[in-house]
Amino acid sequence: MASVSIHPSVDGGVKPGKTGFAGGTLTCHCKSNPVEVQIGSDCLHNHVCGCTKCSKPAGAAFSMVSVVTSDNVKVTKNADKLAVVDGNALIQRHACKECGVHMHGPVTRANHPFTGLSFIHTELSGTEGFAAPTFAAFVSSVIEGGTDPSKMDGIRARLNELGLPPYDTLSPGLMDYIATFTAKANGVLK
Amino acid sequence: MASVSIHPSVDGGVKPGKTGFAGGTLTCHCKSNPVEVQIGSDCLHNHVCGCTKCSKPAGAAFSMVSVVTSDNVKVTKNADKLAVVDGNALIQRHACKECGVHMHGPVTRANHPFTGLSFIHTELSGTEGFAAPTFAAFVSSVIEGGTDPSKMDGIRARLNELGLPPYDTLSPGLMDYIATFTAKANGVLK
Repeated sequence: MASVSIHPSVDGGVKPGKTGFAGGTLTCHCKSNPVEVQIGSDCLHNHVCGCTKCSKPAGAAFSMVSVVTSDNVKVTKNADKLAVVDGNALIQRHACKECGVHMHGPVTRANHPFTGLSFIHTELSGTEGFAAPTFAAFVSSVIEGGTDPSKMDGIRARLNELGLPPYDTLSPGLMDYIATFTAKANGVLK
Repeated sequence: MASVSIHPSVDGGVKPGKTGFAGGTLTCHCKSNPVEVQIGSDCLHNHVCGCTKCSKPAGAAFSMVSVVTSDNVKVTKNADKLAVVDGNALIQRHACKECGVHMHGPVTRANHPFTGLSFIHTELSGTEGFAAPTFAAFVSSVIEGGTDPSKMDGIRARLNELGLPPYDTLSPGLMDYIATFTAKANGVLK
């Protein structure tokens, strides 16, 4: 089963984060004048994600993505190389115009449960220590990215083997959080 | 944990269907002139569902819902009492205008993976034998229906205990089916 590649950061086993980790610098793939983004805290809800919108390393079926509060994200070098991939998307993915890597993705939409959070890819940090991924999201969506449907049993088995329980949406805890936010916004819950 | 009510048809344990079952008649809750819908086959993908749109028995957190091909659905009595609940919804839920029960819900939208299927609630049949539910869908959505978020661990545990694995979307098999349909429609897969 190890022949199924999920993401280079987890294919050799999930590495635990460092307790009390205080952040690091994300660097794009450009050989000259790379974009740098300083992250001022550890990340939350790190996971691998099969959606077709996040940037994935070459050959990987999944991205690895987590969030920090947006006030902990600071573009410190070559900000002029960044452009928003899709202005209509909930996550405003800022990608390097040269190498294509997504550097940070703030959610700024009003009254959304994720407003104030930014999505980041911690493998872009030279420093190890960010919290490890704990689940796999939007697993069925890798088919929309071109994965052969016959490989799905093997992919889900491999994710379970890695300790990354597979979900076809977000994790139950996050889904309950979103539903609670929605129920309160609609006046169904206080 | 048995104190958590999922749906009256499963609360006492999931009853297996009858092999080779050929369908039955669904009857609404009206005491006079009830709507009758003849189902000409067994159902597929029976499950309990936490979404806020399907009709639920009084006090139940979940509906129980399955599909048949639409050519196996025939309204045989009091068709004039039926009205579509929401014409914009994917599932055209036909409800009895008097008692409110949803009798059948065809999907007619062009180029959708569910086109040609009708959603039905098999507990409306006097005859037992329809295929049993095998999973729980849209579990987190019961919060949007008013369930206290603190009850979710107990609800998911009870669903597992009943042999109805809980998902916050559809089952992995159905999600893969939808993703495959989408990938083919987009030309990503042949």
